[in-house]
Amino acid sequence: MSVVSSPFTDILADENLSSAAVEHCLERIGARDHAIKAWAHLDPDLALEQARSRDAEPRRSALHGIPFGLKDIIETGDQPTGYGSELWEGWRPERDAEVVRRLRRDGAVVLGKTTTTEFATYRPTQTRNPHGLGHTPGGSSSGSAAAVADGQVPLALGTQTAGSVLRPGSFCGVFTLKPTYGRWPFDGVLPVALTFDTVGGFARHPAWLGALDVSLASDGAHAPDSVILPALRDMRVGVLRPPWADRATHAAANMLEEFRSGMGEVVADIRDIEVPAELAELDEAHTLIMAAEASAALAERIHRSHPERISDQLHAFLLAGRTAPASEIQRARRVLRSARAFVDRALADVDLLLTLAAPGEAPAGLTSTGDPVFNKLASVSGCPAVGLPAGRGDYGLPLGIQLIAPAHADQALVRVATSLTDGVGLAARPEVPEEDERG
Amino acid sequence: MSVVSSPFTDILADENLSSAAVEHCLERIGARDHAIKAWAHLDPDLALEQARSRDAEPRRSALHGIPFGLKDIIETGDQPTGYGSELWEGWRPERDAEVVRRLRRDGAVVLGKTTTTEFATYRPTQTRNPHGLGHTPGGSSSGSAAAVADGQVPLALGTQTAGSVLRPGSFCGVFTLKPTYGRWPFDGVLPVALTFDTVGGFARHPAWLGALDVSLASDGAHAPDSVILPALRDMRVGVLRPPWADRATHAAANMLEEFRSGMGEVVADIRDIEVPAELAELDEAHTLIMAAEASAALAERIHRSHPERISDQLHAFLLAGRTAPASEIQRARRVLRSARAFVDRALADVDLLLTLAAPGEAPAGLTSTGDPVFNKLASVSGCPAVGLPAGRGDYGLPLGIQLIAPAHADQALVRVATSLTDGVGLAARPEVPEEDERG
Repeated sequence: MSVVSSPFTDILADENLSSAAVEHCLERIGARDHAIKAWAHLDPDLALEQARSRDAEPRRSALHGIPFGLKDIIETGDQPTGYGSELWEGWRPERDAEVVRRLRRDGAVVLGKTTTTEFATYRPTQTRNPHGLGHTPGGSSSGSAAAVADGQVPLALGTQTAGSVLRPGSFCGVFTLKPTYGRWPFDGVLPVALTFDTVGGFARHPAWLGALDVSLASDGAHAPDSVILPALRDMRVGVLRPPWADRATHAAANMLEEFRSGMGEVVADIRDIEVPAELAELDEAHTLIMAAEASAALAERIHRSHPERISDQLHAFLLAGRTAPASEIQRARRVLRSARAFVDRALADVDLLLTLAAPGEAPAGLTSTGDPVFNKLASVSGCPAVGLPAGRGDYGLPLGIQLIAPAHADQALVRVATSLTDGVGLAARPEVPEEDERG
Repeated sequence: MSVVSSPFTDILADENLSSAAVEHCLERIGARDHAIKAWAHLDPDLALEQARSRDAEPRRSALHGIPFGLKDIIETGDQPTGYGSELWEGWRPERDAEVVRRLRRDGAVVLGKTTTTEFATYRPTQTRNPHGLGHTPGGSSSGSAAAVADGQVPLALGTQTAGSVLRPGSFCGVFTLKPTYGRWPFDGVLPVALTFDTVGGFARHPAWLGALDVSLASDGAHAPDSVILPALRDMRVGVLRPPWADRATHAAANMLEEFRSGMGEVVADIRDIEVPAELAELDEAHTLIMAAEASAALAERIHRSHPERISDQLHAFLLAGRTAPASEIQRARRVLRSARAFVDRALADVDLLLTLAAPGEAPAGLTSTGDPVFNKLASVSGCPAVGLPAGRGDYGLPLGIQLIAPAHADQALVRVATSLTDGVGLAARPEVPEEDERG
């Protein structure tokens, strides 16, 4: 059934879109959930009831009736929100996060809550990568990436503080958007490090990400700011050469060069941009500031009297953040500032930056969610980034690239991703796993 | 006795410099402390003992033997540190803050601890402005500003998160330096909002601020980074025209125009630079991020079981920071980022920025420490700023201007301040109050 993964035109033709889409999702989940484990909470009756209501109404937006998944740190008034921690299991927030309110306002239907690492930090979930069940789907938005990749839901929201949208999207072979910092509201979402925290989207076609942005960037009264980019043929693209390039696999590095030469044929100019050597410290600096902010943000949500109920790795992470010497915090903040200045300078010379979305395929095993180093320039600069599936690696799992644009060029960036996918054919989502793999 | 306020050359001639300087300070404090109340802790015997040791040694630096005061949020291993809060009265830290260690390493002598507002935030001290006892000295570094202005100590350290060095320096008619963010170590100092927190200096001649920077910016092995500025006659200066200009008094605005025309005669170019209207939000945005960071940073230092032992205004400030919606935090962070980008752009066109150091003279009364709005661009951008006394207002109290330079041009900035004071005569410290005012 193609209804939930089609472009809008197909969907618009279906009169019982929402009920049909929700039923399709529930059927696929029923067949695959024991293997993928992407959901923290599902209430099929509630989802179907909302879908029927939407089908009985005039369409409110392009997202009308479309089911979506929500990372389980995004609060919902009608479903529990567990933050990926036993401390919060079964907690029922009083109201929806603002992103949920906006999507419901525009007619979309909450299908359920997707798994997240513990408080969106490190301890992995049991979720598996649909393209290789022995591999991580990435994290922290593990369930959102896996559910969309597996065809269990057409759209999902996650959050990115380091690389928690782009990286799992790359590992699972789906399209992602981490919008401009602050463009989508964060109210009602668990804060981890508000300097970086950003809600992002997962989809199997980039056009859906544009529709998500139209809904989420608008408070109902005002359209978002927008920055126009040149047409693709007039575009200047910079290929980042970062100090962490050697953390990419051989296959990923080759894929990037192929993507670069393919893109070079359709844009006005493509050139290398060296990331300054001093930004080798960016990864560590970002992690330290994240830890320092998380140690404050999470303090009230962790019962201090039950330290045994958080993982050792979270405990160590928060302790590192709480006890870091002021000089290290200051040094890290200077590195972050240099990184922002570098991205601003680079985007004064070119229209888009091209880099990997992850160092390679999803690592084997479920003990780690992989390395976010390639995602940190976008997280730190606050510039929007889209992730596009672009080929497979040596083990047959997806590889992904990332395009970064100036702040508030989100719509234009999604249009570039759409052109590269539908027009140029440089990106294409890996097929949803076959029937015979279902179980 | 001029020994403690003279340029280096005079001091170098004195063989018992340190003991003589400490004795002079103690005598002045003895005569004035009941009126000014600038000290949170003094141990005359300890100071004299250290001075005698320094006098018996070879000189280690330009600061050898010089007594200095320390804002009572800067930790000292041999004297109590009270953070301006009854919760911490009499607390004895295990070791010196790193800035204290560096000054002692270079031979300087801790005279004592100066008063600070509660946790370096809002509740004022009992300290009075030496130039008008019915007026605030400003804050939060109230005691450091007042003690230096009153001739009770030649040098003092304070901290600035919003305007807590430049503003009290302006109100008290002394020279100040808020160095480049992160250039002087913050370890062992109470963190309020580490994104902005900076140790700064107070002196009665700008050359002292250069000596402080030589000591404090060096870890002993490495000299600090340094950026060269053109000679004064080749310099381009931008006079800031901010949206908050109307918060200045008439006298301060006139003084700024006079300073501008005086400076225009000795530099290559002086021009207006409009601060973008959107930065009208900077004051509020900075306060919100400061509150959010302070609510985390101070949480472990405030006994939650004794909420009645912090002031109502601190309680309200921290509560506002802890409960601010994510959207407000994100919006504020975007404003701060615009402010940094504005300062970076402006300092690409000119070498220095000129603006007021405070809206006018010190307000009457001790219930408020005044408005820091003119200090926020330097605090947010992390660029170094010097404050220079420049005339008096309608009530006869000091007025001050501020010069902002690119990051790590601290030494060059202090040289500009010295030239404007000694060479051009545009700045001059108000005289230390007369003998007959002593009591």
